[in-house]
Amino acid sequence: MAEDRLELRDMEKNLIRDSRKAKEGGSPSRMERMIQPCAAELLGTMFFVFIGCVSVIEDVESAGRLQPALVHGLAIVVLVACMAEISGSHFNPAFTIPIYLCGGMELVMVGPYIISQLVGGVIGAAMSKVMTTKAKYEEATGAAFTVLRSEEQVARALFAEGAMTSLIALVVLLGAVNHKSRTPLVPFMAGGTVVINILAGGNVSGTCLNPARALGPALMTNYWSYHWVYWVGPILGGLVAAALVRFLLGDNKTRLILK
Amino acid sequence: MAEDRLELRDMEKNLIRDSRKAKEGGSPSRMERMIQPCAAELLGTMFFVFIGCVSVIEDVESAGRLQPALVHGLAIVVLVACMAEISGSHFNPAFTIPIYLCGGMELVMVGPYIISQLVGGVIGAAMSKVMTTKAKYEEATGAAFTVLRSEEQVARALFAEGAMTSLIALVVLLGAVNHKSRTPLVPFMAGGTVVINILAGGNVSGTCLNPARALGPALMTNYWSYHWVYWVGPILGGLVAAALVRFLLGDNKTRLILK
Amino acid sequence: MAEDRLELRDMEKNLIRDSRKAKEGGSPSRMERMIQPCAAELLGTMFFVFIGCVSVIEDVESAGRLQPALVHGLAIVVLVACMAEISGSHFNPAFTIPIYLCGGMELVMVGPYIISQLVGGVIGAAMSKVMTTKAKYEEATGAAFTVLRSEEQVARALFAEGAMTSLIALVVLLGAVNHKSRTPLVPFMAGGTVVINILAGGNVSGTCLNPARALGPALMTNYWSYHWVYWVGPILGGLVAAALVRFLLGDNKTRLILK
Amino acid sequence: MAEDRLELRDMEKNLIRDSRKAKEGGSPSRMERMIQPCAAELLGTMFFVFIGCVSVIEDVESAGRLQPALVHGLAIVVLVACMAEISGSHFNPAFTIPIYLCGGMELVMVGPYIISQLVGGVIGAAMSKVMTTKAKYEEATGAAFTVLRSEEQVARALFAEGAMTSLIALVVLLGAVNHKSRTPLVPFMAGGTVVINILAGGNVSGTCLNPARALGPALMTNYWSYHWVYWVGPILGGLVAAALVRFLLGDNKTRLILK
Repeated sequence: MAEDRLELRDMEKNLIRDSRKAKEGGSPSRMERMIQPCAAELLGTMFFVFIGCVSVIEDVESAGRLQPALVHGLAIVVLVACMAEISGSHFNPAFTIPIYLCGGMELVMVGPYIISQLVGGVIGAAMSKVMTTKAKYEEATGAAFTVLRSEEQVARALFAEGAMTSLIALVVLLGAVNHKSRTPLVPFMAGGTVVINILAGGNVSGTCLNPARALGPALMTNYWSYHWVYWVGPILGGLVAAALVRFLLGDNKTRLILK
Repeated sequence: MAEDRLELRDMEKNLIRDSRKAKEGGSPSRMERMIQPCAAELLGTMFFVFIGCVSVIEDVESAGRLQPALVHGLAIVVLVACMAEISGSHFNPAFTIPIYLCGGMELVMVGPYIISQLVGGVIGAAMSKVMTTKAKYEEATGAAFTVLRSEEQVARALFAEGAMTSLIALVVLLGAVNHKSRTPLVPFMAGGTVVINILAGGNVSGTCLNPARALGPALMTNYWSYHWVYWVGPILGGLVAAALVRFLLGDNKTRLILK
Repeated sequence: MAEDRLELRDMEKNLIRDSRKAKEGGSPSRMERMIQPCAAELLGTMFFVFIGCVSVIEDVESAGRLQPALVHGLAIVVLVACMAEISGSHFNPAFTIPIYLCGGMELVMVGPYIISQLVGGVIGAAMSKVMTTKAKYEEATGAAFTVLRSEEQVARALFAEGAMTSLIALVVLLGAVNHKSRTPLVPFMAGGTVVINILAGGNVSGTCLNPARALGPALMTNYWSYHWVYWVGPILGGLVAAALVRFLLGDNKTRLILK
Repeated sequence: MAEDRLELRDMEKNLIRDSRKAKEGGSPSRMERMIQPCAAELLGTMFFVFIGCVSVIEDVESAGRLQPALVHGLAIVVLVACMAEISGSHFNPAFTIPIYLCGGMELVMVGPYIISQLVGGVIGAAMSKVMTTKAKYEEATGAAFTVLRSEEQVARALFAEGAMTSLIALVVLLGAVNHKSRTPLVPFMAGGTVVINILAGGNVSGTCLNPARALGPALMTNYWSYHWVYWVGPILGGLVAAALVRFLLGDNKTRLILK
């Protein structure tokens, strides 16, 4: 019966691969410590980028920004809930870095996670090319972020990517890493934040928030204009969120100052 | 009071009819072991196909693909949550096969489940004909899948049905069958995946993912062009998901290799 | 601390006013047994009809049927979750009757519940008139159901109201009354079913499903064409759902035959 | 392990900063009693007003009222779930006052909470100005509420703000303060009520419901026409909800009369 007693509270542990837990059951194999988490990050990011890119390439004008917003947001809800117990469901280098900085994972896994995410993003982008016609794929530049066309947009786009990523990273850190505020609703919180960010900021920066989502289509279409914005903005936003949690909002265990 | 203590964790058992559980309460009648699960599969698939087909037949242009996406997806959320404790809420032969392959049901029930689903789909399609005018019903070919018109579309459609079904079947297997990752959020995960798949792939293959959804309207309207795509694609996708769980992502009990 | 231990499982009891529970805490006052449940039914139905009618009167063409579908459905999610512990959150005579027939409430409360719902519906419709301009209110006939214009529509509309109400009443009975399948997700299941029914059947019958929703605007605007359809259809649908649960899908305690 | 046992029930405590709880763990620092709750109110309101204003400024005509409705509503879902354990997630003076009146917080925190909310709203409005182009910002008057143009609209707008705020405040009080009806679904209930209110009443009063949401953009654009409506309406609505709970719907502990 104990086996059946997996309760909703187990979801709390999601978005974090708690290293202590692994030790509870004796010594987990290399498979469960290293290979499964990286496979889950790769497959999760792959499906996220695949379905996200197809939704942009196949977008119907009449649905406006609701289509990409709902697709990217619901994909995060589903995939975060799905892989939580296996890898912690990061799927984004701009989450993995602040999660490490706030004590949610071990340093040795940061590199393998980020590599898995980037490889997954490239495979997902390739799958979106297989599924769509050549005409539609090229018209949408493979769902690469092409909204930035001139220098004067860059400052606003950097601020947008940074501010919106700081919101979603804060949501993830409070909902999944900080003990006092952890909640099983994290998959809905992360996905909901993606929806509102795309609806609000879609025209300013394209609302990427995730270098792995940016890299795949850029590589497939060889489109690199202002690509750096989608690495610098999200990672800076993630660092702001980590600082807010470590210095101000975190519980006694997580907060570094003013205990 | 114990009776009242049904907790959210009980939802975990959903999408699976755990045979051990049945034995706990002594010896359940033939009614609870055989007839009720099949009735639930028939009624659930019937209401799913009924409401899904009506939403396509009555679709208003202005709502774009959001209308069928939300209707099919929310119907899955509702019906999966509703019938979970009775039949496990498959409603789809392309789920029943991988659920069996991953240890989530007994072999003897596979046939009765699939027959119940197909019969339910046909009745649901007939109900959609009763509810709509002859003109609208014929204009929409009874909500049969008519997006495939030429040979050159077939490869992309097969890939689309396979890849999208592998995503939703993976979500179902991890969320409801694999012990380590089971979660009470499974109805939302399954329904959310339907929404994103329809929004993303609606124009490529029509996003069927379910032979029981395809068969009903095809039979009612005698429309069989490329009908096989909606059997082969989803079933192949389901097999890919079962392989991913059995060989890579499953827990120690579910995984067959590399323990 | 015990007081703080209200868990999610407590939500299970929603949509049902469990008479045994009332007795647990000694003898609840007449206030908690009679007045509060009726007040909750009146206020819940009032806010449901108020916000639903305003959304129809103020509808913007471009949003299509999504606006009334989301408003009525989300209002049910919110109000069902909100009043569950007080009245059981029926808000609909076509739910109260089958809930009584399946053992979910006492006979003595059926009359007071239905009267409270109808009065609440009328007050809600009056509030919608106060909030909107005279021009818009009249153009929308106060959000009364005006889709039926000729005799030939009646059969399809009756079937639509009956079939769609049987789905939502089945969801409510399985999710809130039948012990084996009760679940805390009932507010989402009931609201989600409202959304899909409105998106699918809005043009056939207007998707009322609730005599209390029909009566308020009809009285305020004195519009009674085919008004009986919105009593007969939903109540018949509710009876079908009660029969399905009592004779086929219910657990050993609820099912009357084939134990 | 106890640390890991944070269960979903803990979410119940959200929207309320239970002062007794703070005392359980010995004597919490001034940081946890005063500074963190105010910081959470400021940051939560800041992100809510920021993303809400950007969504209005960047609104695409074709999406109709769905865009602002979903953005404001989902932002409430996310932020209420996120800050619940830290500040109780009010983010709105029209919630803080009735929550205090129904026993959900201490008097000494009412002033600091409201000041934090107003300051957060102003910072959020300033961030929305940084992120958008000058042309779009001015065209949308910075997302200030500009729907009221003449005296004859005022009575309906006041009624709308009051009635809709009384609904959402009632939802918050029943779902988070009143012991008998508290539920972990409160973030969804609050956010869902925002969505339906904006979809229904957007053209009547703009559906503000929150003085902190009104103040920020008004200050940034110096637009003060009928600004008082967005203070008087929501606060009156909150008082009506508090009266309904204290005199009619509250449990034995919360209700003041007819015990």
